[in-house]
Amino acid sequence: MNALDKLGLATALAKARKSYQEGGVPIGAALVYHGTTPDTSNAVVLGCSHNQRFQKSSPTLHAEIATLEDAGRLKAAVYRKSTMYTTLSPCIMCTGAILLYKIPRVVIGENENWVGGEELLKQNGVEVIVVDDAECKDLMKRFIKEKPEEWNEDIGE
Amino acid sequence: MNALDKLGLATALAKARKSYQEGGVPIGAALVYHGTTPDTSNAVVLGCSHNQRFQKSSPTLHAEIATLEDAGRLKAAVYRKSTMYTTLSPCIMCTGAILLYKIPRVVIGENENWVGGEELLKQNGVEVIVVDDAECKDLMKRFIKEKPEEWNEDIGE
Repeated sequence: MNALDKLGLATALAKARKSYQEGGVPIGAALVYHGTTPDTSNAVVLGCSHNQRFQKSSPTLHAEIATLEDAGRLKAAVYRKSTMYTTLSPCIMCTGAILLYKIPRVVIGENENWVGGEELLKQNGVEVIVVDDAECKDLMKRFIKEKPEEWNEDIGE
Repeated sequence: MNALDKLGLATALAKARKSYQEGGVPIGAALVYHGTTPDTSNAVVLGCSHNQRFQKSSPTLHAEIATLEDAGRLKAAVYRKSTMYTTLSPCIMCTGAILLYKIPRVVIGENENWVGGEELLKQNGVEVIVVDDAECKDLMKRFIKEKPEEWNEDIGE
């Protein structure tokens, strides 16, 4: 992992930990602009957040959606030179949001506890990198064991 | 169109008109529970709203997402016996949200001004009905002509 991806994923993971501490779904995300080359030289964290299902009683504020909200209204060109970091494989709604804004690169903390729309991202030319991060996995596994009903609600099951 | 679909689309269209009057993107939606049979006998409007890009400076509150938010947290079983009404063909993010919650039926006002993720919905077994409603078409066409940049922003262009 390069320095940019390390920073991006660490930012997402910090939000996931915060959500867990609040009793929420421990999934975090960050949207980072970097320009043409995905490195730290021109990087800006545009937004970062976590799943807000319990904190805001929201069925749509998954980590990635909440992160796009946190970033606010951006020009199309900005999204197209950014990376979305997320601690867990993005669901089909968040996959759709990434495709809507043509974010070209997605770095995923882990996809062992759950797999979302990764194939659809790849089919549409998005670069998908799965880091297989131990802390992302442990945090999510703990939550699913502790609150299985809440987790099912979050994925429409 | 049966009475349920007439009511659902009229509810969505009322929200689209309101958004236009507010200077916003004139797309409205409604989520209607009906049980196993899509008719009015047991129908409940769970939520309805409109695109909030300009009203709330939001990049993710498209009409369908705002409608899911308006409906709040629901049991998986409720979504699965409901119809999503929307005045315009849903974008890929809203398509993803419909698939996440396994909403089995989508009624679309029109897809002449823009086509979103209808094919992906159909590939996943969602019933898609396009009404080709004259007022939905006129309202959207007027907005795109009056505010082309705002419209492009809404679809990530």
